[in-house]
Amino acid sequence: MRTIRSVLLPAAFVLPAALTLLSPAPSGAQELKDFGSFHVGGRQVSLSGYPVTESVFTQGAAPTRVDPNGDFEVEQMYVQYLVPAPQASKYPLLMWHGGGLTGTTWETKPDGKPGWMNYFFKAGHPVYVSDAVERGRASWARYPEIYKTPPFFRTKKEAWEIFRIGPPDSYATDPAKRVMNAGMKFPVEAFDQFGKQFVPRWTSNDAITQTAYHALVQKVGPSVVMVHSQAGNFGFHAALAAPDKVKALIAIEPAGAPLPGPELDKLKGIPMLIVWGDYVGTEAVWTRQQPASVNFARDLNARGGDVEWLDLPKAGVTGNSHMLMMDTNSDQIAGLIQDWMKRKGLMN
Amino acid sequence: MRTIRSVLLPAAFVLPAALTLLSPAPSGAQELKDFGSFHVGGRQVSLSGYPVTESVFTQGAAPTRVDPNGDFEVEQMYVQYLVPAPQASKYPLLMWHGGGLTGTTWETKPDGKPGWMNYFFKAGHPVYVSDAVERGRASWARYPEIYKTPPFFRTKKEAWEIFRIGPPDSYATDPAKRVMNAGMKFPVEAFDQFGKQFVPRWTSNDAITQTAYHALVQKVGPSVVMVHSQAGNFGFHAALAAPDKVKALIAIEPAGAPLPGPELDKLKGIPMLIVWGDYVGTEAVWTRQQPASVNFARDLNARGGDVEWLDLPKAGVTGNSHMLMMDTNSDQIAGLIQDWMKRKGLMN
Repeated sequence: MRTIRSVLLPAAFVLPAALTLLSPAPSGAQELKDFGSFHVGGRQVSLSGYPVTESVFTQGAAPTRVDPNGDFEVEQMYVQYLVPAPQASKYPLLMWHGGGLTGTTWETKPDGKPGWMNYFFKAGHPVYVSDAVERGRASWARYPEIYKTPPFFRTKKEAWEIFRIGPPDSYATDPAKRVMNAGMKFPVEAFDQFGKQFVPRWTSNDAITQTAYHALVQKVGPSVVMVHSQAGNFGFHAALAAPDKVKALIAIEPAGAPLPGPELDKLKGIPMLIVWGDYVGTEAVWTRQQPASVNFARDLNARGGDVEWLDLPKAGVTGNSHMLMMDTNSDQIAGLIQDWMKRKGLMN
Repeated sequence: MRTIRSVLLPAAFVLPAALTLLSPAPSGAQELKDFGSFHVGGRQVSLSGYPVTESVFTQGAAPTRVDPNGDFEVEQMYVQYLVPAPQASKYPLLMWHGGGLTGTTWETKPDGKPGWMNYFFKAGHPVYVSDAVERGRASWARYPEIYKTPPFFRTKKEAWEIFRIGPPDSYATDPAKRVMNAGMKFPVEAFDQFGKQFVPRWTSNDAITQTAYHALVQKVGPSVVMVHSQAGNFGFHAALAAPDKVKALIAIEPAGAPLPGPELDKLKGIPMLIVWGDYVGTEAVWTRQQPASVNFARDLNARGGDVEWLDLPKAGVTGNSHMLMMDTNSDQIAGLIQDWMKRKGLMN
């Protein structure tokens, strides 16, 4: 296996080459010590002075009075946790989804098989799965009065392409006519089911989302953070803001990363693993966005940081989409991550 | 204790008067046999022919192209389940939230204490907590192209009043100035935290929501359904549509109910419990809406049905808001429901 890190630093940190050495997927009933949920972050907004309008909502019905004024809670996020007994990890595992999605990213996969929330819970991690600001159970706020912009609704075509299920213009409404990338491990028969997980997204909410993630880290305390795609930047910046709390960071195809520079010295003590799937060069979104994390990893390692770069195809694991936690070999990739956590001293 | 049913039918079905006989709240670690989630129901919608627009989303930024056209999954709902081992109930317990809310209704309460999802899981029920169409992890669809109307955003003032935390016009932005009903058991210090659970709602989605609930019942199979507020009608109609699958129905302050009539004969074999809290006469929403379930219960019992009516204040349990599963005595009320399930033969 070749990794970017192995080029930059001694070979001691290279991932195990023999995948057959991986821990088997955990299974069976597990003691549930605790479970629950909470909202964290956010603030009260009071709207006043906006006009009251009347709208006819159903043909033939009497007009309904619509008053947008009043007090609302906004900018919070939602977090759900499951704590196993016995706990095998030193820290809770916070799992942060990507753009246009919710915490369901980590739950049961669209094909009905167990996802990474199950995997890491059964491996003994307290798992904290969140819905970021504006999404899922976090709720969203009125626009343009509170959010400044309208939301985007991702089409299936866009998802098919930017999640690298198939090459550009290979999506069709009729599932039988869709063309997938060769060797694709995303369960394409469950792609429409996956589409039921999509939620609208805003382009104007990054700052408030970052603030809520900071609040989450402060609330939970020392933890391992796993991020996907859009959450890459949120995770890296959460580590910069609380390097005492973020004990390790696992970035799955991060869409961005902080710029190289002296500020990254703060991250030297935080082991990081960056994971990329297959077909990255086939889709412009990723050829444009991947360099941010490449440059970040290079610079941080040059400063004495501890970033491992796991390029799955180079490690012999091919066929993975951007949604690799939903791919048919998701347990295999989770196993690589779990082994990395063991090597980094993150398990009891 | 007096109940409406005790007036209509023999006293044998009256709830136990001595609350001290109730089962204690279950506690401690529990074996987790399985957990997961899925989306159910919904369909693909293809939008075409809508104009592509350009919007400036951030001051000074280049315009962004907004194309609403494409394929989307809409009208699905989200369901998460936890299955305990050993299982003490005969059937899974489906928990359906009310309007403007999500499945978080049943989770950890706004004051941080365990809610009914925990209670009934620990009592040995497989619990299935859903987010209805348009809400939470179920996602929502573009309007007016797909949904016909814009959403409503509930203000804290409206929630304070219609959830009967305080009398009309007793809400204030400043928590110190809010006036609550005498003896109130809702944890008012957590009211703003509760406000973080609110999600927008639509008035035009009842039919598609009902359809998704039907799909859920068909997917899970024989089950006990617990509904709250807006979900009352969804639950009663789900039972009418699948009286072979809905093995019992527990309606917490149902906002509506089917009209009396011969169709209710279908429900004669389904034990039902209808629960109402305190202060119902103080709020016009409920003096207007409660009669629907009163008339429903009377008519169904007159037809030989089995509806028990638990008026909590009449049973000596006072101070409960519309969100009684979040009130400080939520375990006590859950215990009454659990005992009813035992009496109805719903536990192993």
